[in-house]
Amino acid sequence: MRQFVIVGHRAATSGDFSLDDMPGSGGRIDILARCVTAAFLTSFNIRRDTRVRLVLLGQPDPPKSIRLEGAELRYLNPDERSTGALIRIALTADVTHGERASTRGIYVQRASLREVLLQIGEESLFYLDENGTDLRDATFDANNATFVLGDHLGLLEEEEVLIAPSKRISVGPVKLHTDHCITIAHNEMDKRCSKQ
Amino acid sequence: MRQFVIVGHRAATSGDFSLDDMPGSGGRIDILARCVTAAFLTSFNIRRDTRVRLVLLGQPDPPKSIRLEGAELRYLNPDERSTGALIRIALTADVTHGERASTRGIYVQRASLREVLLQIGEESLFYLDENGTDLRDATFDANNATFVLGDHLGLLEEEEVLIAPSKRISVGPVKLHTDHCITIAHNEMDKRCSKQ
Repeated sequence: MRQFVIVGHRAATSGDFSLDDMPGSGGRIDILARCVTAAFLTSFNIRRDTRVRLVLLGQPDPPKSIRLEGAELRYLNPDERSTGALIRIALTADVTHGERASTRGIYVQRASLREVLLQIGEESLFYLDENGTDLRDATFDANNATFVLGDHLGLLEEEEVLIAPSKRISVGPVKLHTDHCITIAHNEMDKRCSKQ
Repeated sequence: MRQFVIVGHRAATSGDFSLDDMPGSGGRIDILARCVTAAFLTSFNIRRDTRVRLVLLGQPDPPKSIRLEGAELRYLNPDERSTGALIRIALTADVTHGERASTRGIYVQRASLREVLLQIGEESLFYLDENGTDLRDATFDANNATFVLGDHLGLLEEEEVLIAPSKRISVGPVKLHTDHCITIAHNEMDKRCSKQ
């Protein structure tokens, strides 16, 4: 299983934001939407071996975490707006009592980054950050790795300490958008898997 | 100069399409919008050394070609909708007499893929396609290369013959979306440039 955890520090936590203004009223939900499509979509297919966890920390009801399962997802289109609509539906669910199912393959719960990472466990956890080991040289299992990524704000100091410093991996010499880092990480894993 | 030429076989060629429905009424203009942001945007910056040429072949007024210059661009936001809006403005220009300036750094002309490739010249031209030499092994100048890419339909046979078969480069073992291929190509060029 390949897993990506993406933190949206200002991402809206109710379903009230406008799909016409995801950067503004959605608190950069557009970033999370692009991360979802980068994580799951190949040409005319969905990566069934991939899971995404979005951690949404914006107003009015933080924290919330959305889990998307490639093995179950249907109807994931590549355009940002339709993915934003799926996130918006998930944010309307009542999260008072544990994790709730939203649309097919999508679940939502009340959980912070710390709680999400506890659910995952430390073993195969990595932090995609510009100050890390080069991705191509890094040691990890391409069939069993979790990558944590920040949004346009990166990860905050108190979030970075949740992941061991030795687990930092860099995709390259240029600081890139979060969704682009996911694409590059998948590409490296695809190459490793094809050589197995 | 890094250059990407992307063919949108059904991409709308008038400014009438709806930003709320770029996949439908825009004829998959959403694909071209994502390619533009993948080509130009790094974290809080624009790649000044990059040029994009979109070739739009959909109705009602094909062919049109839009040239975007990283060295001149302003206000390129990462969300799909705002990039779609810039494309839409360009498509309202009169292209009867040669190339016309649209918003800053964006130009539009009446030109087919063949005409665009003639303007570029053959020397540094490559075709990003799954049946090519592996990108990491391929010989090209990371400071002077042009990559031609198809949309969700790939390139048609009559378009593929415009590029020498020896110039095919593959980004990896999994067939990916066009914008993801651009991200991976940039990453490889970034790595080569950082070693120079």
